[in-house]
This record gives sequence, C-alpha cells and structure tokens, in this order.
Amino acid sequence: MPIELVSSTKSFDGLQQQYRHQSAVLDCPMHFSIFVPQKADREEKQRYPVLYWLSGLTCTDANFSQKAGAQRLAAALGIALVIPDTSPRGDDVADDPAYDLGQGAGFYVNATQQPWKQHYRMYDYIVKELPQLVEANFSVSQRRAISGHSMGGHGALVIALRNPERYTSVSAFSPICNPIACPWGEKALGAYLGADTTGWEEYDASVLVGRAETHLPLLISQGDKDEFLEDQLRPEALQLAAEACGYPIRLEHHAGYDHSYYFIASFIEEHLRFHADFLLKNNPVA
Amino acid sequence: MPIELVSSTKSFDGLQQQYRHQSAVLDCPMHFSIFVPQKADREEKQRYPVLYWLSGLTCTDANFSQKAGAQRLAAALGIALVIPDTSPRGDDVADDPAYDLGQGAGFYVNATQQPWKQHYRMYDYIVKELPQLVEANFSVSQRRAISGHSMGGHGALVIALRNPERYTSVSAFSPICNPIACPWGEKALGAYLGADTTGWEEYDASVLVGRAETHLPLLISQGDKDEFLEDQLRPEALQLAAEACGYPIRLEHHAGYDHSYYFIASFIEEHLRFHADFLLKNNPVA
Repeated sequence: MPIELVSSTKSFDGLQQQYRHQSAVLDCPMHFSIFVPQKADREEKQRYPVLYWLSGLTCTDANFSQKAGAQRLAAALGIALVIPDTSPRGDDVADDPAYDLGQGAGFYVNATQQPWKQHYRMYDYIVKELPQLVEANFSVSQRRAISGHSMGGHGALVIALRNPERYTSVSAFSPICNPIACPWGEKALGAYLGADTTGWEEYDASVLVGRAETHLPLLISQGDKDEFLEDQLRPEALQLAAEACGYPIRLEHHAGYDHSYYFIASFIEEHLRFHADFLLKNNPVA
Repeated sequence: MPIELVSSTKSFDGLQQQYRHQSAVLDCPMHFSIFVPQKADREEKQRYPVLYWLSGLTCTDANFSQKAGAQRLAAALGIALVIPDTSPRGDDVADDPAYDLGQGAGFYVNATQQPWKQHYRMYDYIVKELPQLVEANFSVSQRRAISGHSMGGHGALVIALRNPERYTSVSAFSPICNPIACPWGEKALGAYLGADTTGWEEYDASVLVGRAETHLPLLISQGDKDEFLEDQLRPEALQLAAEACGYPIRLEHHAGYDHSYYFIASFIEEHLRFHADFLLKNNPVA
C-alpha cells in the first residue's frame, strides 16, 4: 500500500502532513491528513496513539486540520491525529448536485445501491483500510480513539458502537444522532441503502446504543444555538435510548454556541483530554 | 459612523464577529472581524485592550480569525482582537490580475499614484479610522498593540515605528522587513507611490528603525524553512539596521517552520503573552 506525500508543514514541533493513496475499498485515489507529534522526551521505539477525526458535510481533510486548533494539545499530550476526507472523490465517482449527497457527503456507510455502491464504502475505509495504512506507515500504535463533527459525529458514534474493541473512547461535536429520523439522514440513507429502512439501523447511533454489549467512554458536545439542532441532530433521541438501556453517555449542552468550527475549537481541548485519559492509560506515548 | 453586524459566533466564551461599514478613508464598504472576550470576572465598566492583526497577501479578515487559534488565549488574558481586510475591495476599486498588487495586496500604504490613490489608503485606515470606529462601538480601551504576518508584518512594523505613541508593543510573523529592496515591495511601492523611491522609505521598517526616537517592545518570529525568507523577507536587513542604531529587537528564528498559518498558530501564544505584558501592565483588563 504505497502512500505519496503531498505536503508537510511543521506545527507545534510535530508534522502536519497530507498524503495521497489509492484506496482499494473506495476504488479511487484518496487524500488524508495526519498530525504526528515529535515529543522531545519520547523513547525511540514508542508509538503515538491516534485520534481519528471524521468531518461533516462539504468538508475535506483540510477543515479540521486548519481550523480546530487541535495540534497544540495533541503535540503536548503525544496523540497523533488522522483526518480522512468525507467521501470518495473524482470525476469517475458518482455525485449529486446537492451538498448533502454524493461527494463530500459519504455519511460513513457502505452503499448497496446504484450508482453509489462501487465507491461509497466509507464505513469499511474508516474501520479497516485507513487504520491499516496509517499503522503500517507512521510511528503510531494500535490504540485508537474516534471523534467527529455533525455527519462525522454520526460516523464516529456508529463506528465506535459497532466496533468497541477497536477504540478506547468515542466523542462527537454536534452529531447527527438519529439519522433514520431526520431529513439529512433519510435522504442519504435512502439513496445509499435503498428504500427498505431495516438496513438503515446499522447506521443509527440511537438504535445501535441499545444493541451495544460493551460500553465505551462516550462524550458529546452540543451547542444550543446550533441551527441544525432541532431538525437534524436530535441528541435527545440518543440520550433517551442510552438511558433506556443503561449506556452511560456524557452529553454536554453549551449555551450560545453554534454549529461552526469556532465551537469545535472552543472545546477540542476537553475532547483531547477526555480521549487522553483512555488512549494513554498505562501507555504514555505507548 | 454606523457599523452593520454581518455574523456573530461564540468562541471561547467571547464573541467572534464580522462587521461591515462604509470607510470614509478608503471610499468603499469594508469588512473587519473582531473578537471580544467575555471575562466572567470583568467589572462592568472595564474595557479590553486591543491587538490589531494585519494579514498578508491574498488574505481577508477570515484567515487569522479561522486559522491562528488566537481566541483561546485572547479570551483567557482579556485581550480583544481586531482583524481588518488587507485592501479596499469592490467592483469600483482598482485592481490588478496579479496576487501581489491591487485587491488583497494593499501593503498598508497611502497610494499617491493613479489608478490607486482614490481607494488605496490602508495606512490611514489602520492608524486612524479603524481604531476610532472600534473604540466608539465596542467595550475596548485605547491601549493598542499591533501584529501581522508577511505583508501584514511589514504593515505592523511600519505603523508602530511611525506611531509609537499609539501602541504599547509590536510584533510580526515572517514580515517583509525591507520592502524597498525586495521584488514584492519594489513592485507594490512602485505602483502605489511612483518611480521616485524617496517616498518609499516611509514604508520600510529597516529604514524607519534608524529614524525612531522612541523604542517599542518589538518581537519578530521567522521560520527558517520559509519559502520567501531569502528573496522577500530579509529580516537580516532589519536586524543590522536595528543594531546600528541601538533599537532593541527580539528576532527569533524557528527551525523547520514555513510561511503558513501553521507557523503562526504554533507561536501565537508567545506573541499574545508578549503583548499582554505591555497591554495589561497596571491595567488588567483596563
């Protein structure tokens, strides 16, 4: 699995880099960004644990890299950041003129329908192919946490709930918590998975939480001035489902904050410290 | 001087806002961004001192607002941030197809030549009109510091050296230190000020430092992997001129860093703490 360096920039003593590779799962070339700290006190063979960050609608790997301000604390704590793109890309990849379907809107599912199913397999890409690639090519360990924003918060929750053995902890900013019952989700899941809604439940955090046998540490931050809160995000659905089955989740409402990266930047430190407690436990820069 | 709110977003408990106003000096509508902290322990009539940030070529008020990560510490210290655009703008404003002349490339001068002189008066806008507007409309004091990046670092140095009574301190990231002797500067100063180079010296930090009667605290951060260092920035010219006349400047070279906002984000904390020492001296949130 060869990867090609696109850019490399020093940031907080570490390296913020972008790579390009041919994804077998997505059947197209993909870009991802990665931040690897360079802790001065690291022993030579120590490897950094990784926080995977899944971005929201219309985003690429650039948004979080440039706007969240995560590198400062990731460098200090010794946590690598891996930031994938939000969908397959390219002239040969199916697309839709709307911002909430097709390229930039992969919703972290494995599509079963035409014209999407050839390339739109972001679930498998994030769960399997990307970590394998990252762990084979960088000084990182197999200790993983996962987080994301909006559509990417949905992706992080779904992937962690279905694969608890692969992650130490999961968090999300303003996630789409109940996509089977909101306009963004109904549109995307209908297109990618078809009209039969049974299969949709595999991609709905509010359903999956009730099926979970293992409980991961789970943190959600939500702004109460978020313009998508009521119609699209529905954190109360997840909270009710979690309470019903006894899955402990930490859902924090923040007065006055909206859906933007200014909200993420304001609380990324809290999320990084939350994950650090589990990523680094008994494994300081493991 | 009416101002019109364009957007308002909560950030680190403060407000990150964009405003629009009709500039009398520039004779066109302008946008600027401002971050005003909301310190919980502030007394009602206390006003925040201001750090003015001047951006570089091709930038608007958005780049620093979104990418520098300055709000975190500005909020904690109690310093407001004011981020102007980099030139007059609009269909009626003279422009040039090149990225380094015309809109997005005002170079913080008062133009004397056609077709620029009607609108391109960024020096007067930054020194006079904008602070007046800001101080009349926000909970800020008249204690000001100034900083900037690249072309904006040049602007910050020039404006502080010529108006030391208006600022407590000045700093710059990767500034154009000697524009009368580099390609960017020669092109822009030639266009805005004309072929007679005598007038150019009023906009050259390496000349102005030798004429300064008052010495301000002055910090410069420069990456040694900066792709513009040798041809365009010339910090050694400023350093030599400062040494020759005994103007104490703190010029810090950082190994491995380039010209990007990742460099700014990595050291903005140092610059904010540097300015805080003077902005807040005897005036904690004054």
